[in-house]
Amino acid sequence: MATDPRRKEALAELTDRIIQTYYEISSINHLGHCPLPSNEVVFEIANDLKEVIYPGYRRRQNLHVGNVAYYVGDLIDSLHDKLTQQIARALRHEHQKGHQIVCGSRPEIDFEAEGQKKAILFLETLPSIREMLAHDVQAAFDGDPAAGSLDEIIFCYPGLEAITIQRLAHELYLLEIPYIPRMLSEWAHSRTGIDIHPGARIGSSFFIDHGTGVVIGETCEIHEHVKIYQGVTLGALSFPKDENGEIIRGAKRHPTIEANVVIYANATILGGDTVVGAGSVIGASASITKSVPPNTQVTVEKPQLRFREAS
Amino acid sequence: MATDPRRKEALAELTDRIIQTYYEISSINHLGHCPLPSNEVVFEIANDLKEVIYPGYRRRQNLHVGNVAYYVGDLIDSLHDKLTQQIARALRHEHQKGHQIVCGSRPEIDFEAEGQKKAILFLETLPSIREMLAHDVQAAFDGDPAAGSLDEIIFCYPGLEAITIQRLAHELYLLEIPYIPRMLSEWAHSRTGIDIHPGARIGSSFFIDHGTGVVIGETCEIHEHVKIYQGVTLGALSFPKDENGEIIRGAKRHPTIEANVVIYANATILGGDTVVGAGSVIGASASITKSVPPNTQVTVEKPQLRFREAS
Amino acid sequence: MATDPRRKEALAELTDRIIQTYYEISSINHLGHCPLPSNEVVFEIANDLKEVIYPGYRRRQNLHVGNVAYYVGDLIDSLHDKLTQQIARALRHEHQKGHQIVCGSRPEIDFEAEGQKKAILFLETLPSIREMLAHDVQAAFDGDPAAGSLDEIIFCYPGLEAITIQRLAHELYLLEIPYIPRMLSEWAHSRTGIDIHPGARIGSSFFIDHGTGVVIGETCEIHEHVKIYQGVTLGALSFPKDENGEIIRGAKRHPTIEANVVIYANATILGGDTVVGAGSVIGASASITKSVPPNTQVTVEKPQLRFREAS
Repeated sequence: MATDPRRKEALAELTDRIIQTYYEISSINHLGHCPLPSNEVVFEIANDLKEVIYPGYRRRQNLHVGNVAYYVGDLIDSLHDKLTQQIARALRHEHQKGHQIVCGSRPEIDFEAEGQKKAILFLETLPSIREMLAHDVQAAFDGDPAAGSLDEIIFCYPGLEAITIQRLAHELYLLEIPYIPRMLSEWAHSRTGIDIHPGARIGSSFFIDHGTGVVIGETCEIHEHVKIYQGVTLGALSFPKDENGEIIRGAKRHPTIEANVVIYANATILGGDTVVGAGSVIGASASITKSVPPNTQVTVEKPQLRFREAS
Repeated sequence: MATDPRRKEALAELTDRIIQTYYEISSINHLGHCPLPSNEVVFEIANDLKEVIYPGYRRRQNLHVGNVAYYVGDLIDSLHDKLTQQIARALRHEHQKGHQIVCGSRPEIDFEAEGQKKAILFLETLPSIREMLAHDVQAAFDGDPAAGSLDEIIFCYPGLEAITIQRLAHELYLLEIPYIPRMLSEWAHSRTGIDIHPGARIGSSFFIDHGTGVVIGETCEIHEHVKIYQGVTLGALSFPKDENGEIIRGAKRHPTIEANVVIYANATILGGDTVVGAGSVIGASASITKSVPPNTQVTVEKPQLRFREAS
Repeated sequence: MATDPRRKEALAELTDRIIQTYYEISSINHLGHCPLPSNEVVFEIANDLKEVIYPGYRRRQNLHVGNVAYYVGDLIDSLHDKLTQQIARALRHEHQKGHQIVCGSRPEIDFEAEGQKKAILFLETLPSIREMLAHDVQAAFDGDPAAGSLDEIIFCYPGLEAITIQRLAHELYLLEIPYIPRMLSEWAHSRTGIDIHPGARIGSSFFIDHGTGVVIGETCEIHEHVKIYQGVTLGALSFPKDENGEIIRGAKRHPTIEANVVIYANATILGGDTVVGAGSVIGASASITKSVPPNTQVTVEKPQLRFREAS
């Protein structure tokens, strides 16, 4: 216990200086506002949704036809409440920021009612999302010789985790709910290394193998039966001229990938006008910035390798 | 509290529709089956095993020669019980799936006894795994100028985390235990960005630096003293003809890397017949699909760079 | 309950054999030493520091000018205590290792006092770190058309998470505190896929977009207003001759990136003498091992793509 309590007196003065920066640099604090959505609750929601979609695999075992209705009914009820609250927070915050209104002032808009409406609209999409994901699981099995069973894919595959969360986040994105879709997609990104923006439109039977380093941009369109590997970027064509002047948020900046395309590891496909035609195959490490006709195989003319005796 | 309780009435009908999909799309639910292995328990097992292998570094501090035997003895006892149960679950599930048997019907096979046998066979490998990992730690220290000490490597290096889990998962894989090896390897993948299939055979003194984006396939063979960097893929040669027709699961699809090879960042080595000879060095971003003789330095003929004044 | 208790008798003998390896292979255990810093406490410290820097966003909501001083004052006080203890552990361990002293022997150095001094020196840097990070948040907003607001960046962007932890870890590194800086940077690496060594010197208004696979080495220097994308490596020039002979730890091995440089996805810039001049733009997948003059746009002469009808 050789610490010196007198040294701690410096801390009060330091605290004052830190507080002072909250006034001077207010862009990165969040004081006097109504609560934002909570990361913890949003991630709970994600795990609850996975229980509904893939019942019996994770949190709750021993489910059978005699008890699953109770379990899922209870989950849906609780999801309704959590989603309503978190969506209301996101909507209120966005509104107050836009109008520079302080928390506690009487809101013109009933954000709870708005949140509930959107929560129910979102929950209504679960049956069709589940159908999409069943096709994704099958596509993973068909596309990976190392997959032993559908169970292994549902249990372990990061590509399935990423597309599961993206399909959920995309519905929230379509309902114009702020923050929450991106919180979900970054949660998946953190755990899988796969970064799919909630705005991307992705057709059925989609499979990402391995997946670390995959980036799929906001305005991407992917048709059915597409397979992509680790390190693939479907991104914006970024030249300095895009950086200058005003950034136009929302324009189509990312490519369209038509049906039955395969894109091998580390390929890069860029640009909002770039279309990869149906049935094409893009080789590993290819870099594409112009459209590719259907049924085309694009391979990279390999750079010369130099072989010499190792020193 | 502006939510409308009458709106919640829609939820019962929605729950029914979701339950209905469990009948229509049964491939992604797990109802009426015996429990699968639990992710939580499997990850606990992984952390317990790390305590046995690297005692004193993480969960339990202040270990010394006077108390370590109690601590490790207790861990081994508890690992025996957890492993027996989880392996039994994995075996039972695999068997019932194969024979379409419902949970609760009298099993012909004593899965607990089978699980216990495999659990003990696995635990018996710990002394030799520990020896292998001591060489891996030394290889990391010898190979990274930024490493300050062995302790820092054991404490912080994701490459060591990945190979630790892989060496454990590989022993479970050799014992033909389903699910659990892949659950472990995807747990490591999620936390390190390094994706090594449990089936890969990896010699001693293996070092992965940085590691994000590394992919090592199921049938890879890596000899001793190999060093690889971030983004390296040791994968299958994937051409469209492989996708058509039947997928042959289990054949050697991934390369062999002989002793003392170094593979720099983002290089890609593909194909089951590809052998990189002992002592060779593969340059960054090289793409190899044919065998390389021993003691060869392979570098990429750099693509021309165009330099012009930035606009 | 078909497990056989007699089989468990083998476990005692196995435990003995494992303990035996602690004597034979002592390089990877930590017995009889004073406690190392605790991962759990170090990660708590990181989360506490994020609360101080970005108040109101995460753990604690409903902060306002009337209560924030209490909250932050309490956090700083507790950070002082935790940091003092963890830094003291790191210093003591490093000293005892260097001098092969056993834990419990009377130390010549008062590590608690030393730890407290460094803890306070570190905490004193928080106001200026906070100012730097406000510029980083703005740089992310200016640089990403998909960013909806500053809040979204603070809440969700892995690039901001990585640079936040790096700026904190860098100050601890400058104070020559062992272990803890690297524990922090690997914590961020694990959650973001972005691997920035605590030693790297990074100027203001730094933005990493997407980020998975980024590697920034220990002796890198990055000036202000630099933007980099996923998969970029700022690394050491690694040729076999570097591996032979003695590894010189600490020399400048990594490049210098001057102000207003943009580096697109998967580019690789290597070598301690390599300088990318101010205002330059490095194209995707470019591989640079020599200096680039200011205001230069470097693009890769694309490898020929072969197009043929897919079979």
